[in-house]
Amino acid sequence: MGRERLYLYDTTLRDGQQTAGVQFAVSEKIAIARALDAIGIDYIEGGWPGANPTDSEFFAERPETRATFTAFGMTKRSGRSAANDEVLAAVMNAATPAVCLVGKTHDYHVTTALGLALDENISNIRASVEHVVASGREALFDAEHFFDGYKANPAYALECLRAAKDAGARWIVLCDTNGGTLPQEIGTIVTAVIAAGIPGDRLGIHCHDDTGQAVAGSLAAVLAGVRQVQGTLNGLGERCGNANLTSLIPTLLLKEPFRSQLETGITDAALAGLTKLSRKLDDILNRVPLRSAPYVGASAFTHKAGLHASAILKDPTTYEHIDPALVGNARLIPMSNQAGQSNLRARLASMGIEVDPKDARLGAILDEIKEREDRGYAYDGAQASFELLARRELGLLPEFFSVERYRVTVERRRDARGRMGHLSEAVVVVNIGGERRLSVSEGIVADGSDGGPVNALSKALAKDLGPYQCHIEDMKLVDFKVRITHGGTEAVTRVIIDSEDSKGLRWSTVGVSPNIVDASFEALLDAITWKLAREGVQPA
Amino acid sequence: MGRERLYLYDTTLRDGQQTAGVQFAVSEKIAIARALDAIGIDYIEGGWPGANPTDSEFFAERPETRATFTAFGMTKRSGRSAANDEVLAAVMNAATPAVCLVGKTHDYHVTTALGLALDENISNIRASVEHVVASGREALFDAEHFFDGYKANPAYALECLRAAKDAGARWIVLCDTNGGTLPQEIGTIVTAVIAAGIPGDRLGIHCHDDTGQAVAGSLAAVLAGVRQVQGTLNGLGERCGNANLTSLIPTLLLKEPFRSQLETGITDAALAGLTKLSRKLDDILNRVPLRSAPYVGASAFTHKAGLHASAILKDPTTYEHIDPALVGNARLIPMSNQAGQSNLRARLASMGIEVDPKDARLGAILDEIKEREDRGYAYDGAQASFELLARRELGLLPEFFSVERYRVTVERRRDARGRMGHLSEAVVVVNIGGERRLSVSEGIVADGSDGGPVNALSKALAKDLGPYQCHIEDMKLVDFKVRITHGGTEAVTRVIIDSEDSKGLRWSTVGVSPNIVDASFEALLDAITWKLAREGVQPA
Repeated sequence: MGRERLYLYDTTLRDGQQTAGVQFAVSEKIAIARALDAIGIDYIEGGWPGANPTDSEFFAERPETRATFTAFGMTKRSGRSAANDEVLAAVMNAATPAVCLVGKTHDYHVTTALGLALDENISNIRASVEHVVASGREALFDAEHFFDGYKANPAYALECLRAAKDAGARWIVLCDTNGGTLPQEIGTIVTAVIAAGIPGDRLGIHCHDDTGQAVAGSLAAVLAGVRQVQGTLNGLGERCGNANLTSLIPTLLLKEPFRSQLETGITDAALAGLTKLSRKLDDILNRVPLRSAPYVGASAFTHKAGLHASAILKDPTTYEHIDPALVGNARLIPMSNQAGQSNLRARLASMGIEVDPKDARLGAILDEIKEREDRGYAYDGAQASFELLARRELGLLPEFFSVERYRVTVERRRDARGRMGHLSEAVVVVNIGGERRLSVSEGIVADGSDGGPVNALSKALAKDLGPYQCHIEDMKLVDFKVRITHGGTEAVTRVIIDSEDSKGLRWSTVGVSPNIVDASFEALLDAITWKLAREGVQPA
Repeated sequence: MGRERLYLYDTTLRDGQQTAGVQFAVSEKIAIARALDAIGIDYIEGGWPGANPTDSEFFAERPETRATFTAFGMTKRSGRSAANDEVLAAVMNAATPAVCLVGKTHDYHVTTALGLALDENISNIRASVEHVVASGREALFDAEHFFDGYKANPAYALECLRAAKDAGARWIVLCDTNGGTLPQEIGTIVTAVIAAGIPGDRLGIHCHDDTGQAVAGSLAAVLAGVRQVQGTLNGLGERCGNANLTSLIPTLLLKEPFRSQLETGITDAALAGLTKLSRKLDDILNRVPLRSAPYVGASAFTHKAGLHASAILKDPTTYEHIDPALVGNARLIPMSNQAGQSNLRARLASMGIEVDPKDARLGAILDEIKEREDRGYAYDGAQASFELLARRELGLLPEFFSVERYRVTVERRRDARGRMGHLSEAVVVVNIGGERRLSVSEGIVADGSDGGPVNALSKALAKDLGPYQCHIEDMKLVDFKVRITHGGTEAVTRVIIDSEDSKGLRWSTVGVSPNIVDASFEALLDAITWKLAREGVQPA
């Protein structure tokens, strides 16, 4: 017997944008839409065209997707026709294949927030959905405050849904807008809605995490029969966030009864890209990935308890509810050198370095990594620095040059015309094969203004490396990430620098220090050293 | 009719200690135990006496508590009596009023991990519980892997529970050790266990968050009849963490059907201390509090969407599932390019500034915010800078002082003993009422080492502000966040600084520049100016 189709609807780009501190650029929205499409999400809600310049620009530039691209807006206001509502017109003008309109279904909100008669709200819902349908688009009705509305006045809340259904809405999305409805209550109310004549294959669920149960609430709705689930990557969203698709997707694909009864647009291969997708979003937002995140967190398969770790060695299923590889994650046993060493050998082999399993230097490298990670280093995102550390420990890294000293100055003062300006300057003294070289540089960016101390330092360092100059001249600094972290008891700064050469090769290095300039300097040094090692340059 | 008593069991100090990166000191365990006791938790599981030096020392020094102090351990091993098992003896020697012993209930684990006959495992459970009971302590049996065990072999799993019950265990705790059991399955199995003769008032539930449903799973067990719930503060714990008591407690106390049917040891006054308790744990662990945490997160009652904010002004219940004050949290209406004038007026009102809705300066403030956000500013996380911007636009901000110039130097060089070190120094020249003041400072952190250029600049700036000095002396910089973003076409650096004063008041300011030092300087200046404005200081 065939499994029923369950549709996944992503609102990272709309509700996720309501996360405190999150502000997407257009280019970021494009990158996220592409990633969502690649994993097999059915609907991508891109934002609210007309509500702000970013969303308007994004819809104008939106990428082609296999997923159904959806614009969000609200039902028409009273006192004008759907065709003459300019807020709705801006949404329609985005020309997306689907349009989702939010409307009220809680009587109290209709009379208090909108100041409308109850039947007028119903006419607005009907006219708005009909308008979308008449334009040939797929219409979705987003039933705001549905669960609270149903509890207050079930007849009215259901009448709102029926109006949307009869007007031709493909989907009626039940929203727990305030996030306070508990899962078993969601299950009960969804069952009642279906019994009242709205079939489950036209119902969606939209939960928020205000009691920490958005995932459970969504699953309770699916068990009761809804066939569209809305959520966001990493649970972004207003207040405590939306239902986390990064948790929902593996549960729906891997766990019973969902696995046997439902099918989604996500393949097993796409599921194995989930951890990467989650990290990618954090990267774009420069957020620290949540280590404890279900399925995709760095700690999700970390076995710290001694008893667990030894049982895991005998049989991984003893303390793992799924195989981490299914979601692209990996097991981590912090205390076990056994598992650590085989990982390490695999990583070295990928660098072209074969090491005997019994080589004691494997343990030394692991110890060094652990000690450095305690101090705030992170080698996951800095492969080149990891490679240098391993090569150094194995005696495979020559010393190309040393830095005797540097000095960076930042000044802010008035210029000749009395305007405040700032200027950065760096002096670097290197020693190459016994010969000292002094370089000085200002931090200047494209428009001629000051680019800051790291820019100045980077330029001074790369200005005159004598015999190595020809190997580093095509290097440029393409990204620079800063994170305040904790090394031991003190806050330290971790800097990750991405460099690129003229062949398009890209590599990442890391530096850590309480001093941000010094952390950057360390990452810059690693970037140059890696390039020289990579090209097999002989030390002067 | 009386409500049934529900008992709360905290394992922050035992299972919470398995969190990757968490390592409690004895003094920290004492502080956490006191805080748990103060809020009214029924059981505090302190750790495993004998398993490591910290736990052993902690039990020797444990504070007096109203809560039942509990030692954790495992059932006796085979081939010796309970009295002669030295691992169990170490647990008993901690002399706690209650002892919780973990034992296997999944047949596969008994035969594979322990290599025991099934009935021998049952004898071990019985003998261990009898040993605890005979010593006059309260005995708890922690049924490891119970749900997976029940699914594999229900008769055997139940036999294990009955052995513990018949031996006199006060509580039998059903553990979903691997965290993979879904809430409705937990509900079904708990119902079956009760039907099989273990009454709900002797059953506990212990969930993990591997599918993001530990809270929902715990509540499903309570609905099915268990009367003890185990969890940790802020959801600390192995892998994805344990059930989060910080989410569970308010739901149990405030939401139906729990509120009407059950009572706990937590008073309304204690509940109002929950947000503080959550932050206190993060403080102790030096972790950044999760903004999106249910109930207690800084964003849990933050209303960013313009539509929501305008409704909140009319009636807070429109977009809040509970009154934030019930858990000691507060409403926040941040500024961002999503927000309209109603957000702005609400925010100004909370600053004590009433502005007429028709005042044209409201539009000017929004334009200024929008223009600055285009350049890379973010006011969501920098309320104090927003407040200064608004006050300035409304003519409500005096000029306390101006900065004529500053210079920051970072040097890295060898010290007298030939070791590489770095040093930061800052000079700041301010003008206060026509009088120039020069200050110089080094960037030094607690251990005497260099704290970097921002630290130096912060110290020099706050060193001598003449008549204002008494108002800023108790300020300290508590957090510092850096993000590379885009202002127009160039990459710029955004710095957000959190400051705190001796009264515990905390405020955030933002600075943006291509130069990280200059961005930090701007945020530091705002931090000081906000404090002076807040205290109503008159300019010199």
